[in-house]
Amino acid sequence: MESAIDTHLICPRSISRRVPDDYQPPFPMWVGRADQQIEQVTMAYLGVQTADGRNRETALAAVASIVASLQSANGPSSHDVTHHVDNRGYDNFIVVAYWSDPRTFCSWLRSEHVEQWWSSDDRLEDGLGYFREIVSPRVDQFETLYAFQDQLPGVGTLMNGISGDINEHGYWGSMRERIPLSQNDWMQPADCDTLTIVSGDPAAGGRVVVAGHDNIALIRSGQDWREAGEEERDLYLNEIQPTLDSGMDFLRDNGADVGCYSNRLVQNIDVDGNPVDETYNIGYWRSLEKLERWAESHPTHLRIFTTFFKVATELDKLRLYHEVSVSDAAGQIFEYINCHPATGMMRDAVAVADNTKEIA
Amino acid sequence: MESAIDTHLICPRSISRRVPDDYQPPFPMWVGRADQQIEQVTMAYLGVQTADGRNRETALAAVASIVASLQSANGPSSHDVTHHVDNRGYDNFIVVAYWSDPRTFCSWLRSEHVEQWWSSDDRLEDGLGYFREIVSPRVDQFETLYAFQDQLPGVGTLMNGISGDINEHGYWGSMRERIPLSQNDWMQPADCDTLTIVSGDPAAGGRVVVAGHDNIALIRSGQDWREAGEEERDLYLNEIQPTLDSGMDFLRDNGADVGCYSNRLVQNIDVDGNPVDETYNIGYWRSLEKLERWAESHPTHLRIFTTFFKVATELDKLRLYHEVSVSDAAGQIFEYINCHPATGMMRDAVAVADNTKEIA
Repeated sequence: MESAIDTHLICPRSISRRVPDDYQPPFPMWVGRADQQIEQVTMAYLGVQTADGRNRETALAAVASIVASLQSANGPSSHDVTHHVDNRGYDNFIVVAYWSDPRTFCSWLRSEHVEQWWSSDDRLEDGLGYFREIVSPRVDQFETLYAFQDQLPGVGTLMNGISGDINEHGYWGSMRERIPLSQNDWMQPADCDTLTIVSGDPAAGGRVVVAGHDNIALIRSGQDWREAGEEERDLYLNEIQPTLDSGMDFLRDNGADVGCYSNRLVQNIDVDGNPVDETYNIGYWRSLEKLERWAESHPTHLRIFTTFFKVATELDKLRLYHEVSVSDAAGQIFEYINCHPATGMMRDAVAVADNTKEIA
Repeated sequence: MESAIDTHLICPRSISRRVPDDYQPPFPMWVGRADQQIEQVTMAYLGVQTADGRNRETALAAVASIVASLQSANGPSSHDVTHHVDNRGYDNFIVVAYWSDPRTFCSWLRSEHVEQWWSSDDRLEDGLGYFREIVSPRVDQFETLYAFQDQLPGVGTLMNGISGDINEHGYWGSMRERIPLSQNDWMQPADCDTLTIVSGDPAAGGRVVVAGHDNIALIRSGQDWREAGEEERDLYLNEIQPTLDSGMDFLRDNGADVGCYSNRLVQNIDVDGNPVDETYNIGYWRSLEKLERWAESHPTHLRIFTTFFKVATELDKLRLYHEVSVSDAAGQIFEYINCHPATGMMRDAVAVADNTKEIA
């Protein structure tokens, strides 16, 4: 049994754990272990949006062009591609890419090809929406949790290895306790922090830039039943998925009330745009605390949680995992081109310019 | 908004809370406030057991005689009377009494009348089973929680008043945090602690004394729908009670696996033995931690919890509450006369004498 916090990140605590020292989890779970040279990572959600299934071919071509750009110098260590239809009926394709160093990411982002592609007037006129949502948590700002030990997805692709059985799981509060920073930091935003529109007008379309704030929490929470046998497919599709859908729909449609800025349940697709048997949820939250409060009190999440408790020791090929981070405002990028105004962080962002106008 | 911990019991912490300083509960709840002169209380569960509904009249007469004894000098501040059928089909009547000072309780227990009644050979021969399970938590060792503000039941009867809205509720871990001792103590039993039979033989009947250990947790968790209107009766009887029954049956029958020493869902009765619309659960746990782990992971309890979250702000005459304590072994009394061997703390108690014999 080992701590979810890697040895070089353990430090004297000013905030105690929630459970006694002799706490024993009810079943084994694992976390990713990264090379100690990795100090900070970048997680980039690069999106293409199109209305009503129109322009599907154009959209897929745009996705392919984003994927091609990742192959250039300073590209990410890994990426995967997803699709989902949002609650306004728009199709969204997201290329999700991971860098093991934000400096490399920054070099990629500033490369002539990538920069010109994004800033080109063609992006405003080609009939598609685009977005990029990027956070760069330090290694003490994120955690992972896997019910399996090989071929880690998501940020796990940056990691060299897997832990032994870890102690910090199986109780509410363990997510927070797996994040090394929790030893001494509550990871709270300031009371006055809000998402702010710093340029553009979501209602008008065009280019919009949203400023985030410290300690926005991001969760990627996934399930991969590609290799699952009949019994596990059945468990996932009939017992877990309906409740999951209902919980994620709730957050997508009512997130603003509970502190969830954006919630997308996405499905992985292959290079031709065909769905594969892997989905994950991408949720941005005002704070880790808001995520905790929802997760431990909402009927849909509690139902998934108890089902998982029931089956955890018997999982074979059904792969369940999540990764959760908080990040500093300084490393966050939330930019949109011609996306509908409820896309991503735009929905809850306050238009500072408008407020100024009212005051004046 | 105030702390659940009364002002004179707040002290510098070595164990932090689980939630950030600016945590806001989702709806109001209240705790009992006791006179500061109260330093320790006694909770006495005084039982009468009879097989298969036989001897009901005799049993009720024994209950009446116990109730009468409470009226003598140094009697408790309050009591109530309950009935339940256990999982061996025995009828159990429990008189539950509260003293605001263990010294007064001790004087009562040692009074000639009470002592003679308990030690009399008549108790061995009158065809009934008897038990007394008694704990004496200090005020820093227990908490209360009410969804109402008047006529507090249980240990609340010892208290002069009710708090304002308290902060420590609505999240897992709040029960622990309402207990003042949690500021600096994990309230854990020692690894080697077990319930121990210190005299008698449960299988043989007769008199049995069980020794407890430090930090046994006791929960009384109740629902009173006597005054409830149609809608709330319906809510309780159709939505809450079936799940509650199933959760409490689980603990009664499988408690040993999860650290629950004894679990009884009891119904209040009037002086003639007729049931009234109030029930509560009486659960003894190896530790507060075991109670926490079960409460926050078992489907039945989570379902009750989410139902409560849904209706909490609208409760009118349906009264929901609980009280939870830990106690020192020194003040615990667990004694049985002619009860079946799975009664109360006997079920999980280890027969030290037998072990010694084997070693010899």
